[in-house]
Amino acid sequence: MPEKITLEKKVLSENDALASNLRKTFDENNIFVINLVSSPGSGKTSLLEKTLAKLDEKFRVALVAGDVQTENDADRIKKAGGTMVRPIVTGGSCHLDARMIKKSIDQFDVTNIDLFIIENVGNLVCPSSYDLGEDMKIVLISTTEGDDKPLKYPGMFRKSSVMVINKIDLLGFSEFELKKVKDNAHQINGSLEIMETSCRTGEGIDVWVNWLQEQVIKKKNNSSKS
Amino acid sequence: MPEKITLEKKVLSENDALASNLRKTFDENNIFVINLVSSPGSGKTSLLEKTLAKLDEKFRVALVAGDVQTENDADRIKKAGGTMVRPIVTGGSCHLDARMIKKSIDQFDVTNIDLFIIENVGNLVCPSSYDLGEDMKIVLISTTEGDDKPLKYPGMFRKSSVMVINKIDLLGFSEFELKKVKDNAHQINGSLEIMETSCRTGEGIDVWVNWLQEQVIKKKNNSSKS
Repeated sequence: MPEKITLEKKVLSENDALASNLRKTFDENNIFVINLVSSPGSGKTSLLEKTLAKLDEKFRVALVAGDVQTENDADRIKKAGGTMVRPIVTGGSCHLDARMIKKSIDQFDVTNIDLFIIENVGNLVCPSSYDLGEDMKIVLISTTEGDDKPLKYPGMFRKSSVMVINKIDLLGFSEFELKKVKDNAHQINGSLEIMETSCRTGEGIDVWVNWLQEQVIKKKNNSSKS
Repeated sequence: MPEKITLEKKVLSENDALASNLRKTFDENNIFVINLVSSPGSGKTSLLEKTLAKLDEKFRVALVAGDVQTENDADRIKKAGGTMVRPIVTGGSCHLDARMIKKSIDQFDVTNIDLFIIENVGNLVCPSSYDLGEDMKIVLISTTEGDDKPLKYPGMFRKSSVMVINKIDLLGFSEFELKKVKDNAHQINGSLEIMETSCRTGEGIDVWVNWLQEQVIKKKNNSSKS
């Protein structure tokens, strides 16, 4: 279907142009931006709840939570203490795009944000094609999924900078092997940084939050862009 | 983006026409066809491994396993005893479409099949829009995901006839509540049939397999179409 492919290319190049503008805005304001992606049910919202509870209060965090239909995720994150939180209901679309992010970010004061978190729609395929102007894509995978996910959805793992392995408290309840998932992930993307977390027991959350804070500080201190 | 929407409609109506032809072929040959959908990692392949091991040998089963990149799922199912098994590697596409199914089914002898199983790409959004000529969509959800999934991905639950709740051995390891997921599912689709399984302990597999066998027999005995 060449007509479909041509249009897809056009949609993606329009998205890339918008994302590039967003990135410029984020850089000018020294905002560190992550685009959190995963399957539905890997624990993106749970990780964000834990993250907001642990993040140093001095960081000003804005967050948008993408969902196909409900505002459940945004509501959960607000309850966990998020103040600048907005839902994006895609109304059927399987991914966020730069246009949706632009519309959301226009509702925030960008001079008053240190960390901007984008919780993407739960989907390991489509969001990998849409640049949202982020500094990093962070892919979450849980131990109750298969350890071959990086091989099966290589696009997402190739484009991510960090893989967070969540639900490590459930290791041993399935055939999921930590070594295998790491080997598979590094086979796709040799420079992928890997962390392990459990939102239930709290294991690994400090390591993740400290790492995230370091990135925010680095971006704030990035004098070349300030 | 009206241009995109117009093209999407065209793609979907072409798909519907192809699916309608497929359905005719399946009906003429009294083949019961299921389209198994879920998030990545809910256990579609594990359920199919268990199903093939338990199904009465008198049923002739053909199966196609859709995957974005690997043939892992088809390989696993072949090892579990599937004889007529073919992978469909979508090469980046986030769903199977009727054209792919047509191409696959042409490699089988349709006069020699009782049950045709389509394992879709792991994705709760896009596959809901693509009719594959199936008798039923069956949506799998696991207890390690959120119990609000039916509300968050209503399209898929609305179009499915059965919801299989998998990994019930892991109930209690998260905040997932059986009652909630069932209520949420029935809120979206009041006639959704619900079953519970654990591929690890085997719980509920017999109920599922018996139900499936009944559907196959019903379709075989459907004299109006034979």
